[in-house]
This record gives sequence, C-alpha cells and structure tokens, in this order.
Amino acid sequence: MSGVLVEANVSGCTQKNVELQIRQVYAVTLAAPQLPFLMADAQRSEEEIAASKDSKRPLVRVLPDLRLDNRWLDLRVPAHNAILRIQAVMCQLFRESLAKRGFIEIHSPKLISGESEGGAEVFRVDYFGSNASLAQSPQLYKQMAMSADIPGVFEVGPVFRAENSNTARHLCEFTGLDLEMPIAWHYKEVIQVVHETLADIFQCVEEKHAEELSIIRQMYPSEAPKLPAGTESPCVLNWDEAMELLTSNGTQREDVMADLSTEEEKLLGRLVRERYGVDLFFLDKYPSSVRPFYTMPSEEQPEFSNSYDVIFHGQEIGSGAQRCHDADLLEERCAELGVPTGPLASYIESFRHGVPPHGGVGLGLERIVQLYLGLDNIRKAVMFTRDPTRLSP
Amino acid sequence: MSGVLVEANVSGCTQKNVELQIRQVYAVTLAAPQLPFLMADAQRSEEEIAASKDSKRPLVRVLPDLRLDNRWLDLRVPAHNAILRIQAVMCQLFRESLAKRGFIEIHSPKLISGESEGGAEVFRVDYFGSNASLAQSPQLYKQMAMSADIPGVFEVGPVFRAENSNTARHLCEFTGLDLEMPIAWHYKEVIQVVHETLADIFQCVEEKHAEELSIIRQMYPSEAPKLPAGTESPCVLNWDEAMELLTSNGTQREDVMADLSTEEEKLLGRLVRERYGVDLFFLDKYPSSVRPFYTMPSEEQPEFSNSYDVIFHGQEIGSGAQRCHDADLLEERCAELGVPTGPLASYIESFRHGVPPHGGVGLGLERIVQLYLGLDNIRKAVMFTRDPTRLSP
Repeated sequence: MSGVLVEANVSGCTQKNVELQIRQVYAVTLAAPQLPFLMADAQRSEEEIAASKDSKRPLVRVLPDLRLDNRWLDLRVPAHNAILRIQAVMCQLFRESLAKRGFIEIHSPKLISGESEGGAEVFRVDYFGSNASLAQSPQLYKQMAMSADIPGVFEVGPVFRAENSNTARHLCEFTGLDLEMPIAWHYKEVIQVVHETLADIFQCVEEKHAEELSIIRQMYPSEAPKLPAGTESPCVLNWDEAMELLTSNGTQREDVMADLSTEEEKLLGRLVRERYGVDLFFLDKYPSSVRPFYTMPSEEQPEFSNSYDVIFHGQEIGSGAQRCHDADLLEERCAELGVPTGPLASYIESFRHGVPPHGGVGLGLERIVQLYLGLDNIRKAVMFTRDPTRLSP
Repeated sequence: MSGVLVEANVSGCTQKNVELQIRQVYAVTLAAPQLPFLMADAQRSEEEIAASKDSKRPLVRVLPDLRLDNRWLDLRVPAHNAILRIQAVMCQLFRESLAKRGFIEIHSPKLISGESEGGAEVFRVDYFGSNASLAQSPQLYKQMAMSADIPGVFEVGPVFRAENSNTARHLCEFTGLDLEMPIAWHYKEVIQVVHETLADIFQCVEEKHAEELSIIRQMYPSEAPKLPAGTESPCVLNWDEAMELLTSNGTQREDVMADLSTEEEKLLGRLVRERYGVDLFFLDKYPSSVRPFYTMPSEEQPEFSNSYDVIFHGQEIGSGAQRCHDADLLEERCAELGVPTGPLASYIESFRHGVPPHGGVGLGLERIVQLYLGLDNIRKAVMFTRDPTRLSP
C-alpha cells in the first residue's frame, strides 16, 4: 500500500488533522468474495438479537455449528479472540503462581499401557500391536514424580475423556491444569495452595487484562468473581455441612452418600454464595464410595475421604485429594473396588521405594474460562472443539 | 524428628560450631529395605566407572532398562533431577521469549480425524466408532490460527510419532515447541525469531541456572553452546552451500537432492563449527521433494523450498518453513504428491477466507535438552520414555 499524507479535518478519529490518501493497494492474499458468515452478524450479543426480534428487520443469529465449522472465522470476532487470549493468560498465571512456590513443570506421557485409571471412558490406541489408551489425567505420573524427590509438580496438558456427553460443559479433549505436592502435616495445605493459585489467577486477570475482559463482557456480560475476604483463606465446606445446607433449603436426598447431581451442585453454589458471599469454594470430605481408588480415606471415618471438589459459580472445575501413598493400603482399596492392579504395577511399586504423603488437584482450563466469563457453552472457551459428534476441524 | 542443639566442633560442614543431637525420629513413610539399585551406583559418571575397570573392585554400572523401569528412583540421581529442572526452565523460557513478542499460547487438538498430515507413522484411535489419529504436530491447527487474526501463536505440547525407530534420539511421544507467525516481507523473519528465541533460552539457562548445570556437568561433561557473535544474527546456510561444504570435505553424494543422512548431518555440523565457529545453524532452501505438502516452494526455483532445518551440535532439533497459504497452490501440491485432500478440507478452506503469508517451526524439547547437555541418550532428557518397546511406566 502506498499513499500521500495530507492535511485534513477528520471527524470520528483520534488523528484529526492529517489523513493518508491511498494511491496504490497491493493484494498480498485474497479472501473469497463471500464468507460463510458476516463478522457483523457473528459479533452481536444475544441481547441485541433478542431486542430486534419484533422489529421489521430482526437481526441474524449465526448458528453454533456454522461457527464451529469455520472456527478460524469465529475467532476473528473480537470477543472470541479475546477469550483465547484470556485462556492463554490463565495458563501462564497458573504456571507462574506455582513456579514461584518452587513447583516444577512436567510433561507426563499421554500414551499409557492398558487403561491405567480404569473405566469405560477411555480412548483406545494401537501401540505397535499392544493395547494402549490415552491418559484421562496425569494422575499416576504426577504421583510417581513425588517418589522422585521433587518439591511439587504441575502440568498443563491435554486430557482425554471418551465420555458420550453432549452437554454445554463437557469436552472429549480438554486442557488439564494439574498439580501435586508433598504434604508436611495435613492435606489442607494442598487446598490452601489450590485456592491461592486460583485467587492469583483471578486477581491478575482482572487487574492486568481489563481490556480483553471489557471486549468479552460487551458480548457476554459477567462480573469479577467474589472470593473470600482477604483472598488468602479458602472457603471450605465439609460434605455434612453441604448436606445440611441443601436440606435446610428443602432439598430431599434419597442417598446422602451419593454424588451430587449437576442441579444439586448449582443449587449448593447459590446457597454458598448467599451464606458466605463467595463464588469459589471447596466441597471437602467426599464419601469414599464415589471417589477413585487412589484417594486417601479419612483416618477417623473411612467412609469419608480426604478429597474435595473445587466449585466455581456452582459448577465443578476440578477435584483433588490426599492420595493413598501406602502401597499395601492402595492394593486393599483396589481389591475392594475391583480395580485390576496389573496395569498399575509400576505405580504401586513406586510407593514401596519411599514417598512422602502427598496430594493434588486436577482442574479443567476450559471450565474455568467458561465460568469465569459467564459463557453459555464450553465450546466458546476452547480453540477447536472435540465432542462425541465433532472431530473436525 | 526432635533433637537438641549443642556446641560442637564439626569438620567437613559449613556449620562448624553447633550440631543437632537427634533424640527421636518418626517414620512418616517407609521404603523397602532393598531398592532396585543404589543411589551411589546410579550417580557415577561413565568416567569414574571406566577408571575403576582394572581395579580390584570395579564399580557397578546401573543398566539403562533397570533405570527406566524404576524411573522415579533414577530421577533421584541429582544430575537426572537437575535435567528435569532444566527441561522445565527451557519450556518456560520458550514461552516467555515468544510472549514478549506478542505471541499467544494455544492448545490445539491432539485427536484429529483421519490421518491429516498423512504418512504411515501415525497412531490410530477409535473415536466413538470413527477413525481418528494422534496429531504428529500442531501443524494444521497453528496455521488455521493464522487465519483467525492472531499475531503469532506458540504451543508446548505432546507430539506423537508411530515411528519404529529404536535409536538414542527418537521417541514415540515427545514435547513439541511450536510457533507460527505472519510474514511481513520475507520468511527469513521467521528464522530470525526462531534464532532469537533459542539464543534467549541458551543464554538464560547458562546465566541463571548455573547450579543445575554444574550438577549435571559433573556427571555428563558439556560446555555452553557457541552461538554467532552478538547472538542476534542466525547462521544460515543454503542447501547448495552445504553441499559444497560436504563435497569440499570429500563427501560424495549420489543424489544431491536427497535428504541428509544422520552421518552427513553430523559431519556438516562439524564442518560448520570449524568454518563458522557455531553449534547452531539453519540449513535453508531444502529441496521441495523431501518436504511436506504444506511447504512453500521457492518462487525462483520451485525445486527448492522456503524451508529449513534447525541444526544444533550436528543434529536436527526441528524444522520449519514458509507455508503454502494459497489454497489453489496447496491443492496442486497435494495432487502432485498424492496426498488425499479429503481429511484436509477444513484446513484448505481456511485459506480461502483470507490469511496472511506465514511460517513457523516445530522443535523437539527433548532433543534440545539432550544436545545442550551432551547426553548420550534422549531417554535421559524425558521424564518417562515412550519408544517402540516401552509403554510403561
């Protein structure tokens, strides 16, 4: 492009007294004359579209699948582009917050033998004629790192779940934010680190990325989340306290030890916000029966466990626990739950070589982004969606 | 543990005038009395072992497979523990160096439909009854990001290669350091960014991580790599210059357009070090015939391409190129090379919606760590090894 700079009187621009008069334009690369949808249509808020419903020219809504089929175009929408930036920023803040505590980043293998963590929800891979599967989490490997004399590890990496759930909050491939650390005295130390890490991320996003947030909030209104006063202390509810809260609200639960339904989780989120004024809390002391084999049972009441879910805006963004670091107890738990120990041989063996008590958490990046920004669908919080019906682009 | 602090006269310690006399010790967790190998044996250098060969008590060598079977113990060896820390540091420096240039971190899907990048070296996955494969690189997705109006992207993530190579430098799963960026005038801009990023990483590792390096170098001697003077300008050799250099050394190449063998690559590395005094260089203008379909042919001489390998200590640590951003040209290239365009439909379509000329690189983290630290085997540069014969632990 070439042009001439001339004096002028321009309104509606920051630069008012000069303008560039274009003489020549070269097309370096061309776009097709008609794109699958118009940027003007794609960047309207639901509010604007709803307001135009009864007018003579109701505004067009670009349907979700058309957007996902042309995700590169959909990412040109300023709000969507900014969501991707906030996602990147959150990853970086997660790492920085843990690195400053002495944690080390690891890259654990995603190809694992058998179905180490068990369950049907596993993608199977042919590995030079052997049966392999895709890791449902870095769980076993981050725990083995604890046996390797490392002061704490974290990982930001893909997590694979062959779950046939077509909902607004499930993905078959997402980015896990994982950490694992030795426990000096009590597993509440882990909850403290997880809380501080999330509080660090949330504060820094609001303070340093106001521009991106403002672009996103024009299209998707949301507010900064409410954290406990001072932000240093996590809000922790034990299972029985949560049950009381639900009961006091008139909720009847047939089996008080059954896992929470999505609806109960959302209701609990609302009740906690009313009572404690926070959007982020830990639901601790989960019944052992609904937790994985590697979870440490509570010493006083083994029917409960030293494990917790992290609940944000009434939805689970991750779960964690103190782990069973005693090889014999771990084998007992596997036997009780019918988990085959064959594929776990190395993992269990690692605990016989001396390992400190330890615990950690696994968080879902896209869930955090979705709930933080009040997005109606998790597909808006991920670059390219993988769900049971979508493997492309 | 509890004890009493008493005055004393201690030799061989930094703290000489006091000592702690232990009264009680509690075992929080126990290790088996006999471990698979002794730390004292595992942390000896090859030099020490060789020197003891003819003595009355030759020192024990802990064999590689025993180490890998008990990798958590092997990682307690101070040098190996420090290698993991250097690996983590290099990732962080890669990200920081690019983030300060305005690049954004992405997480591209690892599950892809068909075998998008083609080739036999692909792991196949059953995706709810459809055929999927594991991404051999984030290539297609980082390019689609260029169509999404993003000023440059990078990714640190797993890369999968079903290559049946049992060598000291191949892994079936490794960590890719990828970047992709728009080109303003010439693809040499990409080479410049890749060089500066690597130079940033190398300088910072030497300056700020001298302690870890010194621990590693006691067991595995190595020196800081030699970079071009000033470190701002990359050393770039064109294909024909490299051929001349090899020929002048007496190497006969039957087919001057064939890819380099590992031996030729190593020889070239030595010759470049002799002539230019550097351990890091770019071998540019590769013959088009040995590069993937998405590589941009050179405008003047289409039998060559705007693509390069990054060579470090005489071995390839990654390759990159200007990409073919013209959808028609891309389809032509696919037809010429017999690459089916079906699975590439979305990828090709994205270039019809307007995309700037762009280029990038894909580097292998573990290769960089291995060559930087002079390790004889890449398995020492990765937390848990995945090769054709090893899927566990």
